[in-house]
Amino acid sequence: SRSLNLAVIPGDGIGQEVVAEGLKVLSAVLPQDVKLETEEYDFGARRYHATGETLTDADLDALKRHDAILLGAIGDPSVPSGVLERGFLLKLRFAFDHHVNLRPSKLLPGVATPLAGEPQIDFVVVREGTEGPYTGNGGTIRKGTEHEVATEVSVNTAFGVERVVRDAFARAQARPRKKLALIHKNNVLTFAGHLWTNVFNKVAEEFPEVTTEYMHVDAATIYLVTQPERFDVIVTDNLFGDIVTDLAAAVSGGIGVAASGNINPAGDFPSMFEPVHGSAPDIAGQGKADPTATVLSVALLLRHLGYEAEAARIDEAVAADLGERTGKPARSTSEIGDALAVRVAG
Amino acid sequence: SRSLNLAVIPGDGIGQEVVAEGLKVLSAVLPQDVKLETEEYDFGARRYHATGETLTDADLDALKRHDAILLGAIGDPSVPSGVLERGFLLKLRFAFDHHVNLRPSKLLPGVATPLAGEPQIDFVVVREGTEGPYTGNGGTIRKGTEHEVATEVSVNTAFGVERVVRDAFARAQARPRKKLALIHKNNVLTFAGHLWTNVFNKVAEEFPEVTTEYMHVDAATIYLVTQPERFDVIVTDNLFGDIVTDLAAAVSGGIGVAASGNINPAGDFPSMFEPVHGSAPDIAGQGKADPTATVLSVALLLRHLGYEAEAARIDEAVAADLGERTGKPARSTSEIGDALAVRVAG
Ligand SMILES: CC(C)[C@H](C(=O)O)[C@@H](O)C(=O)O
Ligand SMILES: CC(C)[C@H](C(=O)O)[C@@H](O)C(=O)O
Repeated sequence: SRSLNLAVIPGDGIGQEVVAEGLKVLSAVLPQDVKLETEEYDFGARRYHATGETLTDADLDALKRHDAILLGAIGDPSVPSGVLERGFLLKLRFAFDHHVNLRPSKLLPGVATPLAGEPQIDFVVVREGTEGPYTGNGGTIRKGTEHEVATEVSVNTAFGVERVVRDAFARAQARPRKKLALIHKNNVLTFAGHLWTNVFNKVAEEFPEVTTEYMHVDAATIYLVTQPERFDVIVTDNLFGDIVTDLAAAVSGGIGVAASGNINPAGDFPSMFEPVHGSAPDIAGQGKADPTATVLSVALLLRHLGYEAEAARIDEAVAADLGERTGKPARSTSEIGDALAVRVAG
Repeated sequence: SRSLNLAVIPGDGIGQEVVAEGLKVLSAVLPQDVKLETEEYDFGARRYHATGETLTDADLDALKRHDAILLGAIGDPSVPSGVLERGFLLKLRFAFDHHVNLRPSKLLPGVATPLAGEPQIDFVVVREGTEGPYTGNGGTIRKGTEHEVATEVSVNTAFGVERVVRDAFARAQARPRKKLALIHKNNVLTFAGHLWTNVFNKVAEEFPEVTTEYMHVDAATIYLVTQPERFDVIVTDNLFGDIVTDLAAAVSGGIGVAASGNINPAGDFPSMFEPVHGSAPDIAGQGKADPTATVLSVALLLRHLGYEAEAARIDEAVAADLGERTGKPARSTSEIGDALAVRVAG
């Protein structure tokens, strides 16, 4: 019999609530012969306040032994900005070499979008996860004085760019439309821009069936609201990916339905799956959070581990559930989870 | 009698056409006693191909003698990406210390937006123009090899941040709603982020009437499409400003109506005014380009030089013209310019 061994990190705010529903749907969809084992970890604001720790070497050793990680949300206003982001979220991405940050955007029938008309949105962003402006390189001199200078260094390597570009080409190749857009700002950030552009053009030669285009990040934000149907697969750097995926989530149904995977494609370390939304402390503990983004993240997790049929069942259940929401009274977090669990089991 | 001495840089693509209309409207709106003098400069792709020059020291000396600069667009596919951007546009901004990049976004009645509903959009972005990731700091080693490393260094100084933050607070203070949002990514770019946040909070103490908020750049893109009415004045760094102003232009009527000023508030050097759109080589020379963004840039130029009443007349003429467009046949570049010239003169 098979087994699926998950590290579960509920985290802060609504994290606990949405992760519970994600696990509910996971249990309902898994084949009988798969033994699901979960181990919960207490990372986040509470642990930080109690111990000063965000993510220790021992934590990383423990997390390493799981098949994958499911995370709710990390972050709380009681913790200074950056402490949990750099100390936990980014530390984990870098430690486990999560260089493919996968963020699909699909506007499902019946789902509201801030855009006028009936845009067709179905694309996936492959965001680099271990380089660029996110490395924490840089520093400050004369801090707090009128002569302070603060720098941030974006570090880009041919190794790091090529592997994520190659991953994106392979994903584009596997999709019906076979289109890939590189988003950067190569007319201003010429050092990193030329590296990205050259690597992209070189790898493109290996994928002659994939249609490519290049777009500056500023222009990309325009197309995301005026012609979102233009996109199929997007590959981009860590910071640009952060920005365009939030905009992409906003136009394709909101961050309530935006899922993401922080993937180590080679499987050297477990990959981590999480909703794009944050911990939303303002609505935490009230059963108001929509667990859909977490449930869709569970689908990404299953797909990553080879459970394609089960992942597809979740995607279908979510599409059906979203399609029937209009005009109905709002449901609680667990009611939505229950409904999705029934659908995937049925 | 007064005089207004302008440097005019038509540039590439549609630049020539739209600048001609900008000057037409300027002549029509200026009081009789103001002597308008213009000198045209041939910067852009043609000059680059002919001479290899983008912007020389002698050019800067010549430009320095004008009261202000009006620019159409610079950029052509025949020139490698980055050459004219770094060699002309950014060189000029840095040389003339254009640290306030002012970009108003106002959705005028009758103007189409990609957003559903009837959003109220009326805000202005104050983008820093001389620091951040735009400094050209960084470099490449092992270029073209599989071991290439390319860096981009964002440089931020208390001096540079404080002057632009102070400018933005003053603008917020002068507006009815008196709201100012700082956009950054201080949870990841912690060195630059803390500098921006600390300076912002310090300057805020001098403007107790201004309501402030902080927003991560990724979240800001969400609000720009879901709650654009939330914004009054935004202050942000050079790269984030580049990105959010294109998105802001897209939601508030498109880049056909987006104006900008590259301003040196102290007047040490002439400020430069330009439409946000590019050179659009695909429609150049066909009389199809909308000169409205250039005409609105002329209004920003006039306002900067103290011609407030004339600037307001242009704004009103543009609002009236846009409000009457729906259902009418498309007009040529010069027909739109003519109509606006008639309105401002009347
Ligand atoms: C919380 C933050 C570190 C994170 C990021 O910037 O990557 C978040 O915005 C995201 O997109 O996952
Ligand atoms: C052309 C380019 C250098 C420029 C920028 O990035 O500032 C443009 O996008 C703009 O916004 O004015």
